[in-house]
Amino acid sequence: MLLTPFRIILRSFAGSRFSALSSLWCRKQNKLSTLNFYSDQTTMLAVDHTLNDFPPGPLDVYRKKASFDWRKLKLLLEDEKLWRFKVKIWQALESDPIFRHVDDLPLDAQRELATKRMYRVRAMNFLPLEDILEDPRLPLTMMIALFQYEPSMTVKYSLTFSMFGNVVLGLGSERHFHYYEEALEGKILGCFALTEISHGSNAKGMRTIAKYDPATQKFLLHSPDFEAAKCWVGNLGKTATHAIVYAKLITPDGKDHGLHAFVTKIRDPETMLPYEGVTVGDMGHKGGLNGIDNGFVLFDNYPVDREDLLNKTGDVTPEGEYVTPFKDPNKRIGANFAALSAGRVGIVSICLAYMTKAVPIAVRYAATRRQFGPENKEELPILEYPLHQWRLIPYLAAAVVLKNFGEFFSAALAETSKAAILNLHQDDTSKEQAAKLGIEIHTLSSSAKPVAAWITNLAIQESREACGGHGYLKIAGLCDLREDTDVNATYEGDNNVLIQQTSNWLLQLWSKRKTPGVFDFPLGSVTFIADADKILNSKFTATSVKEAVSPKVLQDAFQWLICHLLKSTAAKIETLSKKGFDSFSVKNHSQVYLARTLSLVYCEHFLLKKILERAESVKADEKLYKILLKVSSLYGAWSLEKHLVTMYQGGYVSGALPATILRDGILDLCSELKDDAVSLADVIAPCDFALNSALGMSDGELYKNFQKALCESPDTFTRPSWWRQVTFWEAALPASKL
Amino acid sequence: MLLTPFRIILRSFAGSRFSALSSLWCRKQNKLSTLNFYSDQTTMLAVDHTLNDFPPGPLDVYRKKASFDWRKLKLLLEDEKLWRFKVKIWQALESDPIFRHVDDLPLDAQRELATKRMYRVRAMNFLPLEDILEDPRLPLTMMIALFQYEPSMTVKYSLTFSMFGNVVLGLGSERHFHYYEEALEGKILGCFALTEISHGSNAKGMRTIAKYDPATQKFLLHSPDFEAAKCWVGNLGKTATHAIVYAKLITPDGKDHGLHAFVTKIRDPETMLPYEGVTVGDMGHKGGLNGIDNGFVLFDNYPVDREDLLNKTGDVTPEGEYVTPFKDPNKRIGANFAALSAGRVGIVSICLAYMTKAVPIAVRYAATRRQFGPENKEELPILEYPLHQWRLIPYLAAAVVLKNFGEFFSAALAETSKAAILNLHQDDTSKEQAAKLGIEIHTLSSSAKPVAAWITNLAIQESREACGGHGYLKIAGLCDLREDTDVNATYEGDNNVLIQQTSNWLLQLWSKRKTPGVFDFPLGSVTFIADADKILNSKFTATSVKEAVSPKVLQDAFQWLICHLLKSTAAKIETLSKKGFDSFSVKNHSQVYLARTLSLVYCEHFLLKKILERAESVKADEKLYKILLKVSSLYGAWSLEKHLVTMYQGGYVSGALPATILRDGILDLCSELKDDAVSLADVIAPCDFALNSALGMSDGELYKNFQKALCESPDTFTRPSWWRQVTFWEAALPASKL
Repeated sequence: MLLTPFRIILRSFAGSRFSALSSLWCRKQNKLSTLNFYSDQTTMLAVDHTLNDFPPGPLDVYRKKASFDWRKLKLLLEDEKLWRFKVKIWQALESDPIFRHVDDLPLDAQRELATKRMYRVRAMNFLPLEDILEDPRLPLTMMIALFQYEPSMTVKYSLTFSMFGNVVLGLGSERHFHYYEEALEGKILGCFALTEISHGSNAKGMRTIAKYDPATQKFLLHSPDFEAAKCWVGNLGKTATHAIVYAKLITPDGKDHGLHAFVTKIRDPETMLPYEGVTVGDMGHKGGLNGIDNGFVLFDNYPVDREDLLNKTGDVTPEGEYVTPFKDPNKRIGANFAALSAGRVGIVSICLAYMTKAVPIAVRYAATRRQFGPENKEELPILEYPLHQWRLIPYLAAAVVLKNFGEFFSAALAETSKAAILNLHQDDTSKEQAAKLGIEIHTLSSSAKPVAAWITNLAIQESREACGGHGYLKIAGLCDLREDTDVNATYEGDNNVLIQQTSNWLLQLWSKRKTPGVFDFPLGSVTFIADADKILNSKFTATSVKEAVSPKVLQDAFQWLICHLLKSTAAKIETLSKKGFDSFSVKNHSQVYLARTLSLVYCEHFLLKKILERAESVKADEKLYKILLKVSSLYGAWSLEKHLVTMYQGGYVSGALPATILRDGILDLCSELKDDAVSLADVIAPCDFALNSALGMSDGELYKNFQKALCESPDTFTRPSWWRQVTFWEAALPASKL
Repeated sequence: MLLTPFRIILRSFAGSRFSALSSLWCRKQNKLSTLNFYSDQTTMLAVDHTLNDFPPGPLDVYRKKASFDWRKLKLLLEDEKLWRFKVKIWQALESDPIFRHVDDLPLDAQRELATKRMYRVRAMNFLPLEDILEDPRLPLTMMIALFQYEPSMTVKYSLTFSMFGNVVLGLGSERHFHYYEEALEGKILGCFALTEISHGSNAKGMRTIAKYDPATQKFLLHSPDFEAAKCWVGNLGKTATHAIVYAKLITPDGKDHGLHAFVTKIRDPETMLPYEGVTVGDMGHKGGLNGIDNGFVLFDNYPVDREDLLNKTGDVTPEGEYVTPFKDPNKRIGANFAALSAGRVGIVSICLAYMTKAVPIAVRYAATRRQFGPENKEELPILEYPLHQWRLIPYLAAAVVLKNFGEFFSAALAETSKAAILNLHQDDTSKEQAAKLGIEIHTLSSSAKPVAAWITNLAIQESREACGGHGYLKIAGLCDLREDTDVNATYEGDNNVLIQQTSNWLLQLWSKRKTPGVFDFPLGSVTFIADADKILNSKFTATSVKEAVSPKVLQDAFQWLICHLLKSTAAKIETLSKKGFDSFSVKNHSQVYLARTLSLVYCEHFLLKKILERAESVKADEKLYKILLKVSSLYGAWSLEKHLVTMYQGGYVSGALPATILRDGILDLCSELKDDAVSLADVIAPCDFALNSALGMSDGELYKNFQKALCESPDTFTRPSWWRQVTFWEAALPASKL
């Protein structure tokens, strides 16, 4: 019985405060000397020949031209243990017919399949609790592997077996532990209901209420109207039996205590029919992710047991008095920030999972697709065209940069969560540092999620177009990626709203810039701003193409941009305030070209910083060092080029030279990297089963795979059942017209 | 019997050279005094109250604030007759259950429905030949109306009842007339097969051959391998009985006469089974347009009757001699260019059809969706946020600009086709002018198609994101638009390849710039280049926000950009040539930041020119004039801003001021236009039935329509048939593991 190990471990906590579970987790963790942000380089570089070779084929030409050993770079960017874990998952899925790739399923069948697959993955038990305790990076690694295979099933898995239980653990107490256990055992199926039809970003505007009635000792959950219906709830449309519902808690004295979370029974697990007082429906087709049944729900004075209030931050006594166990709720600010960040860090990884599929498909296609060529000579692979290089290779660099950042960032988040939960920091200084780390991660995630979502969307679109007409076929695998990634721009904080969190914080720091140490934060994302005066007086110094794309010049330029945008945005805010604008309007009128750009360059600078640190870490290996420098330079120069106007406007550059050498530098780097492009794609791509693209298989047999994919499809050569209606169109006429 | 009028007219040509049909068409046309590019303004402005008012509702607030009468602008941009024709079509579709919007159909059912609908539209006979003869703008108008309703059916209709017959008429002779007639009667169903699996853009690389055998008097059509399979052929997957197949014509002497077109029997219309020697299959799911059955086909020495060669430009005698009827094939260069342009002009209109759906949905959503607001005040419509205005309103302006251009451009194309077919120009001067018009239209269409495809893609994506999470729902109508429009970037000339046609021609002209009159072309798209020396010496003169976005300043800047990019690209070409690069490499290395940008700004400048001319044409109506100027300025400034780096680089601007005033100008215009945005959306939007969006209905009842759409869907509240598998997940375990 597969559940046994879980049950034994979990039941051992029953009856005690179940937060002991987290403690155990953390104590186990603590045994690991420290949670390294990067794994041990030495070990990794030693095991560079354990990865399989690619099958020989048309891609060999480029593979042989590569300037570096793709295995070394792969194992530098991705711990071998994690890669092998992914491969194990993919192999297990590939060998089970339920995971065979299918398309053309109606909505209902997509949901059924996603549900079945989710349970099958759970049954496969890739991640026994013991393993998570050993290495907390595994859950996210597993999620990435599953996302690369198929996102709908993965989201459903994650909602069902992770999010619901985690929220119960995080916001509840021991009286809720049975929900956690039942969810893990598949006896109930949970979901998370926060957003309402007319309120998403502005959570304060939510209107669902939970009024406590001491007579029945129940909360009456109520949705005043359709606009207050909870919506977009994954699992709720067809499959959830329980929901965590956020509602304004009203005590009998009429006092509104703000949003609280309630475990709410939605459907009877025995019949899957909704309970009386619950109107629950499905939201139908979406752009993508159609295996997930997103739903909406309205409550009509629906009774919820008093005990089902998740009562970590506040509870109601049987008599109806509101009580809160926290004397100092500010204590956990850092940890709370980290909790908020988790979803966004997860989205960065999801984007990464998609981007490292799309770009390799387009690169391998470009290396094997030939079109046109010099007079009377063989046609050239389209990868040889400078225009095509310029379209694709910067996204390839961006994918490497994002992959590097993603791994670092997940580890940093795990570190801060651990520190907060273990209460490792006893003295004031280390408490402050922990809080600072939480805030810095929050700030970074608030811009990294939008940056990752947008760049992934663009990368997929360019990859799709770079595969020409064939890229439009489902078997290319690109259109589905685009549809699935799209939602990342608007959920878990709409990109354009969320990104304001970053600029708000940076501007707050800026206003205190005369205070010593105000820019000292653990990840060093803002340290340089302490030198703002000097930076603002500096100029772009490069005079050659080579200099223009050198790490120092690029970093300096980004730092100038950040300081300049801080100063300009602050100045704009001051001007508007003096004109009598209220603070709300001031903020709204200082976004475009200012605060919004500030948040973007802050994130881009940090991504550049991390990939350059990575390069520095392997300086001894000249080939790896060089390729990482080129990737860094291309990403940096290409990102910076988009901000050149602001650099001209702010006087950091002037005249023709800076734009000329920066643009020439981008083109030169694209050209220098084109022979490495296939190997870089090999470094970041998942296995062929997860890639699932007839155009981008690792064997490079473009047309063979294309033909195979077409011919294997069962409907390719069939005559439709309605063939008699194809010609003789009078049959289509309404009788009256004949 | 609905076919009668067609039959009478068509049969009257049987036995004669059927090109007489075109002649009649043109003579009829000629009766119209001239084909006005713009219809008579006076008439239009007099009938401004014949359009229905919108139902009262939440959008009234903005509608009342509008600075202009939306009906006047609508009828200025869209001839009332054409609008009424569209409405007639939409009303007819809405009243017939077969056109009820449906989703969640499997692929096969989508094809069946598209086929049925196509025939039903044909049966509705919206466009009797007589009407086309009266007004040649009607076919494209009908296409736009149908595209806005549903693209797959429309493409199928267009391939079946327009493209197949037109190619037969255009490339064949009277011996092929029966195909035209049978296609119109629905006895056969045609398609057009040019592209091969391994060759698209490079048509010269096609490898299908048609070798003539005098013994049997047949061509043997042969595909050497899968890479030479014809592919992407709309209608071929499941429904075509006949295909126009392009193959290299080989005479018995072994000589290759290049690509020729053959009417080829694919499937027996009586059984819909393919003939022996034909391997035909379906290409399966695509990103969008899944009602169209795109197919591939391979021929195995498949016999085609000698007479089925479409023999306008070349024929083979029964004995196997190649003959060509044209003594001076150069004669029709202009007309041929125009024919090449027709597909691209059509795509501009398709993009327009999509863009004028997407942007109005997002604008109406923005006007009715409220989120956040000043402290203790009502929440604001998101349209009030400057950031949101900046995201959406430039696309709204672009949609108006593109709509204006689309109408002009279709009319210009009709004019040049007419002139060419009627042979109106007898003297050398007017022949030259006609050829010049053809070339200019070709050049414009080669950049307008890419520009329209890209901007529409971006507009739909921004519209989708601007509707937040709700924009991801199918009932929002945006994701389907994105998937359907996507293909426009890569078919009928891949955007990045096609756009080189424009720069090639501009650079040719540039090389002859000392020749007097070399820039005189009928549409005036390049006239100003004659003054290049003066223009290249000029500078950006604006010193205020108002000036920066004034028509003169914007046009001057675009003209400088074009001249500067011509000069820089030509200089780059010279440098590379001197370095010994061959002409192929020279071209490839002068695209990025140079030739490619040149083509883009050339098109953007022309779009701006046409909208400004439109504004000038209504100068007497101050309100219309003002709103059109604002729209023009915003489109111009927003497009120009993307090229500011090149302007700094080339020394046209310097210092902080130009970027500052141009960017401030964009923001000011967005803010000035926000109260007009809903009315501008009303001007360009189709009727609600065609718009088909729960978020963007013209009544503005956002949440009511949202609720209605959810509740009306038959599956919203149903329990899935597989409900027993939802919980108790052990059921999902393989038996061996239990």
